[in-house]
Amino acid sequence: MRPKPVSTGVLHALVLGVLLTFGTWAHAQTDPLPSWNDGAAKKAIVDFVQATTTQGSPKFVPQEERIAAFDQDGTLWVEHPMYTQVMYVLESVPGLVKAKPELAKVAPFSTVLEILKGDRAAIAKLTMPDLEKLVAATSTGMSVETFASEAKKWLAEAKDPRWKKPYTELTYLPMQEVLKYLRASGYKTYIVTGGGQDFVRVYSEATYGIPPEQVVGSAGGTKYGYGKDGKPFLTKEPKLMLNDNNAGKPEGIHLMIGRRPYAAFGNSTGDRQMLEYTKAGDGARLSMLVLHDDAKREYAYGPAKGLPDSKVGTFPQSLYDEAMKQGWVVISMKDDWKRVFSFE
Amino acid sequence: MRPKPVSTGVLHALVLGVLLTFGTWAHAQTDPLPSWNDGAAKKAIVDFVQATTTQGSPKFVPQEERIAAFDQDGTLWVEHPMYTQVMYVLESVPGLVKAKPELAKVAPFSTVLEILKGDRAAIAKLTMPDLEKLVAATSTGMSVETFASEAKKWLAEAKDPRWKKPYTELTYLPMQEVLKYLRASGYKTYIVTGGGQDFVRVYSEATYGIPPEQVVGSAGGTKYGYGKDGKPFLTKEPKLMLNDNNAGKPEGIHLMIGRRPYAAFGNSTGDRQMLEYTKAGDGARLSMLVLHDDAKREYAYGPAKGLPDSKVGTFPQSLYDEAMKQGWVVISMKDDWKRVFSFE
Repeated sequence: MRPKPVSTGVLHALVLGVLLTFGTWAHAQTDPLPSWNDGAAKKAIVDFVQATTTQGSPKFVPQEERIAAFDQDGTLWVEHPMYTQVMYVLESVPGLVKAKPELAKVAPFSTVLEILKGDRAAIAKLTMPDLEKLVAATSTGMSVETFASEAKKWLAEAKDPRWKKPYTELTYLPMQEVLKYLRASGYKTYIVTGGGQDFVRVYSEATYGIPPEQVVGSAGGTKYGYGKDGKPFLTKEPKLMLNDNNAGKPEGIHLMIGRRPYAAFGNSTGDRQMLEYTKAGDGARLSMLVLHDDAKREYAYGPAKGLPDSKVGTFPQSLYDEAMKQGWVVISMKDDWKRVFSFE
Repeated sequence: MRPKPVSTGVLHALVLGVLLTFGTWAHAQTDPLPSWNDGAAKKAIVDFVQATTTQGSPKFVPQEERIAAFDQDGTLWVEHPMYTQVMYVLESVPGLVKAKPELAKVAPFSTVLEILKGDRAAIAKLTMPDLEKLVAATSTGMSVETFASEAKKWLAEAKDPRWKKPYTELTYLPMQEVLKYLRASGYKTYIVTGGGQDFVRVYSEATYGIPPEQVVGSAGGTKYGYGKDGKPFLTKEPKLMLNDNNAGKPEGIHLMIGRRPYAAFGNSTGDRQMLEYTKAGDGARLSMLVLHDDAKREYAYGPAKGLPDSKVGTFPQSLYDEAMKQGWVVISMKDDWKRVFSFE
């Protein structure tokens, strides 16, 4: 076999080289965060990236250590009026009841059927143990592939009641820009969510450009076994291995990543320890909190006075005060974001 | 600020382009596995890479799905006469006894002191619960940073008794070539080890080019807390979260990676389920077993007749038979490897 003539290759390389050069030059002139208003939040992000990626900077971070962690619900996409995964669990109940009709009259399944018929107030009746029972019934006892394909199917059809759009379109454009900007700056971006790891992994790549192996979330165990055809498969078990909330977030980060992030983004009490842990590292560290204060374009639910400090998924006044004290940067949805969604 | 003149950049790009072009051309002529003898094992690797990475191939795998999993002990480096991590645990005992002299007369610590004094036969006295007790005493109850720095210090000084070299130099050159070849072909390479995840992560990047976040291993829990200075840190706990052996390997892969590998490499019964699980996927899948049959250059301990099927860390005849039946490819260290170590 004759080697490929070099001349054609060289020509391609020259063209590519010229394009790359102009590309880099053009990029330097472009705002990486066009959906952000100028202000302290945007400046904190740009300053952090420049400090950690400019060769010779006293706070330069080698590329392999550049890790950024993002909470999902309320940080990367809408979490109100209910977490998307909770909607998935609730809307999976009718199918479950069809297969096991005896469940229709048993709580919490009967409560869910009421909610889905329109009795929204019935949601308040669901306790945490109820929710755990529902997750176990709808999301375990099947192969990991079956779970993924059912979740994928639901996500393709389900719509948020307010915007009438698929949930995966309700991501925040400014945060998508931060993800891309950090990746273009050599950061590995991770989702670190209290939500189910297997659920988020179904759409993380298409929705955020984050591959499944960079999703850390609450995780149940699996059990290895064999089908009738002798083929091995993994069954999702109801046993919780990692509760990726509060202290579980830094613990999950150590388990799954093994390095302390340089940047972390959250929006609620469940993210407090992740932000603390990130900020406590040496050198330049960025901890940011998305504040939902825009009832018109999205929702306003913080900072809320009178809420208990520890309630997961809330933004009490104490969290705001801690951010000020610790040097975390608060992102005001209302003031810092020019646009909230890409479809606006 | 004036933009950087384009001309210099273009010149650099041209030079780079030319270099890249010659580089690519030269690479195509180069054997990616120079330490391998021609034979079925080498051919299986090259065929697999070509089938999964050639555009238009019926078995083409998109780059983001290219995952390869490698057992460590006995697959990437020497595991005889004892796992390196077990040596670390044993050699940490004198320091522990210095701090707590009352342990000197208590088993299993007293047994370890005998072993280290030269009574090698005493090793046989150590049971699995003994070993767990020793791991808990030497490798938990400290911050994750303290553990990493102590392990790093030990690795820099400790030497294998036969080759009188640091353990991290006792990696198999042919397997290092496979790691590099797969990475150059767009694969993400993971270590999936029965050893401690936190231990292997200390040296994985320098030794194998595998970053900590791509090390899946047996993992204990950690506990988030605060130091006297108010700074948060993670303490290593004796609680085992993931026993990454046997069925624990595919379970660990699902937990930490979330995708089934396309290629897996092991060398013992502890890798059986990982090889099975990998091979059971659709399309081209490569499962390979390193057979230690070279007493002269390394060790010969397989296939061993009369061993129980399930003993972790062994290569019984039954494993060889299963490989033949399932289409896993056996790598004979004696016949397939031109060189074993880079220092040869």
